[in-house]
Amino acid sequence: MSIEPSSVKRAALIGGGVIGAGWAARFVLNGIDAVIYDPSPDAKERAQNILTMARKAWAHLMPGVELSEGKLSFASTLEEAVKDVDFVQESLPEIESLKQKVLAEIEASVAPHVIIGSSTSGLLPSRLQSGLKFPERFVVGHPFNPVYLLPLVEVCGGDLTSEETKEKVSAFYRSIGMQVLHVRKEVDGFIADRLLEAVWREGLWLIEEGVATTSELDDAIRYGAGLRWSFMGTFLTYRLAGGDAGMRHFLSQFGPALKLPWTKLVAPELTDRLADRIAEQSDAQADGVSVRDLEVLRDEALGKVIRALASVGQKGYAAGATLNDFSASLSDKVDEEDAQPFLLSWRGNVSPEWIDYNGHMTEHRYLQVFGEATDHVLAEIGAGSDYVEAGYSFYTVETHIRHLGQAYTGMKLDVRTQILDSDSKKLHIFHTMTENGKDEPIATAEHMLLHVNSKQAKTAPIPEMIQKKISELQDDHAVHPKPQASGRSIGISR
Amino acid sequence: MSIEPSSVKRAALIGGGVIGAGWAARFVLNGIDAVIYDPSPDAKERAQNILTMARKAWAHLMPGVELSEGKLSFASTLEEAVKDVDFVQESLPEIESLKQKVLAEIEASVAPHVIIGSSTSGLLPSRLQSGLKFPERFVVGHPFNPVYLLPLVEVCGGDLTSEETKEKVSAFYRSIGMQVLHVRKEVDGFIADRLLEAVWREGLWLIEEGVATTSELDDAIRYGAGLRWSFMGTFLTYRLAGGDAGMRHFLSQFGPALKLPWTKLVAPELTDRLADRIAEQSDAQADGVSVRDLEVLRDEALGKVIRALASVGQKGYAAGATLNDFSASLSDKVDEEDAQPFLLSWRGNVSPEWIDYNGHMTEHRYLQVFGEATDHVLAEIGAGSDYVEAGYSFYTVETHIRHLGQAYTGMKLDVRTQILDSDSKKLHIFHTMTENGKDEPIATAEHMLLHVNSKQAKTAPIPEMIQKKISELQDDHAVHPKPQASGRSIGISR
Repeated sequence: MSIEPSSVKRAALIGGGVIGAGWAARFVLNGIDAVIYDPSPDAKERAQNILTMARKAWAHLMPGVELSEGKLSFASTLEEAVKDVDFVQESLPEIESLKQKVLAEIEASVAPHVIIGSSTSGLLPSRLQSGLKFPERFVVGHPFNPVYLLPLVEVCGGDLTSEETKEKVSAFYRSIGMQVLHVRKEVDGFIADRLLEAVWREGLWLIEEGVATTSELDDAIRYGAGLRWSFMGTFLTYRLAGGDAGMRHFLSQFGPALKLPWTKLVAPELTDRLADRIAEQSDAQADGVSVRDLEVLRDEALGKVIRALASVGQKGYAAGATLNDFSASLSDKVDEEDAQPFLLSWRGNVSPEWIDYNGHMTEHRYLQVFGEATDHVLAEIGAGSDYVEAGYSFYTVETHIRHLGQAYTGMKLDVRTQILDSDSKKLHIFHTMTENGKDEPIATAEHMLLHVNSKQAKTAPIPEMIQKKISELQDDHAVHPKPQASGRSIGISR
Repeated sequence: MSIEPSSVKRAALIGGGVIGAGWAARFVLNGIDAVIYDPSPDAKERAQNILTMARKAWAHLMPGVELSEGKLSFASTLEEAVKDVDFVQESLPEIESLKQKVLAEIEASVAPHVIIGSSTSGLLPSRLQSGLKFPERFVVGHPFNPVYLLPLVEVCGGDLTSEETKEKVSAFYRSIGMQVLHVRKEVDGFIADRLLEAVWREGLWLIEEGVATTSELDDAIRYGAGLRWSFMGTFLTYRLAGGDAGMRHFLSQFGPALKLPWTKLVAPELTDRLADRIAEQSDAQADGVSVRDLEVLRDEALGKVIRALASVGQKGYAAGATLNDFSASLSDKVDEEDAQPFLLSWRGNVSPEWIDYNGHMTEHRYLQVFGEATDHVLAEIGAGSDYVEAGYSFYTVETHIRHLGQAYTGMKLDVRTQILDSDSKKLHIFHTMTENGKDEPIATAEHMLLHVNSKQAKTAPIPEMIQKKISELQDDHAVHPKPQASGRSIGISR
């Protein structure tokens, strides 16, 4: 198999609906060229809209991370789409015979070693691959909408899928920020959609019986269990409900509920009457808000929830941990290039959540960026996180910020730092923030830092090793003039 | 009925397990005295632990909000517990005959007008109230664990429950920060637990068949649909999947999936063998992490997810909107008392998420607090959010922060502001942050603000009305000396 996580440069999407276009956006943001084949007239506009939404979502998810995008293009034939690609992802409607037919067409145009993934949400891979000449390279990779934001992908092979294919496609999906769930035993609906269908079918029954509306069913989830489900599934949640005695206690206590009539456990027939009722209730629930606006709301909420989970515990939790691993894996380009005289201490994009009611980056976000720049400087002089854990640190005792311009959503910012002065316990630095590629400062920050023994909560002399590193930088920087603004005080001059 | 949202001063909890103690914590944090009756030997310790966790969660959820707590106490008899209470919440094990018996005992000791709520997760209120003398004041209020964090409460009356009872108990639950879902038609398991049971039963079948483990089942939810479910339920999500054509299109496209064998839709028997398998898999999943530690993790994640949702859109979304409404309803005490000479411009508690790797409040959070204090000052002089919407604003052009002490999690902070100077376009202010009740400053911030026409992006003269208000404050403050630190610059003195 030719697919290595880093070797996918060009991928074909066969079918460019919400799922296919979602894959394309995820690929493009990962630097992979994506070619969509979809004969429907609105495929192009949809894919471009979805890419725009995905860009916004990623800027929010990983505000300090630079991405170099792949190209999004559209092919007019299937053959053209799969030409020279390293990977194919099929995302056609859930019709077995249609998928089988198109998979055979794909196979006729790509080399035998190119892996073909299918986005099917429940059809069996053994059946989908049954007509292929090289079925060992066919595998299901079932994602969730929106594909560019939700990390889950279910990987399921058929009888003839090789282990190598499953491993390589999993490594590839992980390399583009996804969380792989191996479906070890082929089953209709795989794992996730069986659970989702159970909720859906029970919901249909409750609507049919007039117990609840679509809106009430949604509220029953989103204000309660849904909040837990964003990071802990049913089983870990119930383990907690069992208290210290754990799962066995929970089962002995709640097992009898299985005998209670608490689910209808039948799929009601989707009669026209029921379909009408659902559609009417759903219209009432949406209350005139368009699907597009709901998608924007969904992406904002998903982005914020995932970011929130990224800050849980030491390393993030659930989807937040996946995000942290992924964003760490993207190359940190801050240190790479630096033709400027001073230390490049921060580079990144302004996140939409940093914007205030005036439409500009809000005050304390400047200090957040400058604080991260200071952390970078400290790491450079050998006083990074290990040093803090060892019980020493530099504390900021004084800060002077000047606002000279404005930063807006998505703007790429650089911070460069000049070491102005130091003594046995103090460090005096000056940060300048510019828009990447421009010279006019947007803001400056001058800081005085004090070296402390944080366990004793006392100032302490800066160790020689670190003093040496400070002196080197300070000497380098001293050949340039001090910034005029340094040493300034605040006041109205009259 | 005597229950008015604001009139509940003392409530009894009959049953002090995870649910009863969770109610007690929510009551106490809302200023209501809570009396628990639970004969089990560990009830007291559990309730105190849960209150401690709830306090931490609320400090995180509403960092700027002051709470005056009610008292938590324990009664040795049921009669003692319900004496002089305004409300009773029963949270006993899910055994119908037990609940009926105890409800009759409760009734024998409280006045006929006191509402009795039951936490049952699925037993029918008509049956539970059948033996009561005043059944009209009995109602189900079914919460979700942890009760102090999850907003959902299902309110369901029985045949004999009065409308007044349902309305009053709903108003009461809302007043303590909850989201009420009216279950209009009595049905076993109500709405939420029927949906949860559907997932649970399908999960049991998948474990029984060896398709998935407890850990894989949880991953299938939490990395995918669970993230969406934290703010949008199944039906709104599927509306989006239907694209612009909406729900009707979705139904026509996916309705046929109901014919597919995608849920087993049978409750497998919970044999010893299956129970053993689940318990073993759950142990492996927990990987040695105790239930207590998992609860801490859960609360941190829930708090952060809800806070994230509170920042979605203009007013928060889903549980985030509920939180915003609730925290707005709690009296903002900032303006009430102020014996100090300068403007009290901020009061609140340090949120755990504001803490950095040194264990102190992180730099930019100081500026966040000072920025909010500045906004408060601007609102005081008539340049609040309406003024910003009208196209004018004060922009901060220069900031000087001094760190003189440290702020820690939960510390209650005050910021007081002195107006130092002003001219036709500028405003010069000085904030001092102290721990509430102490004089030593933790930090100070000096700001120069410039008045601008934000549409033209130009400075503009401050209107007379606002100038007048500034002068009044400035004159009041001028009788006190300027802070020594004002006009200071940064540098190492030699």
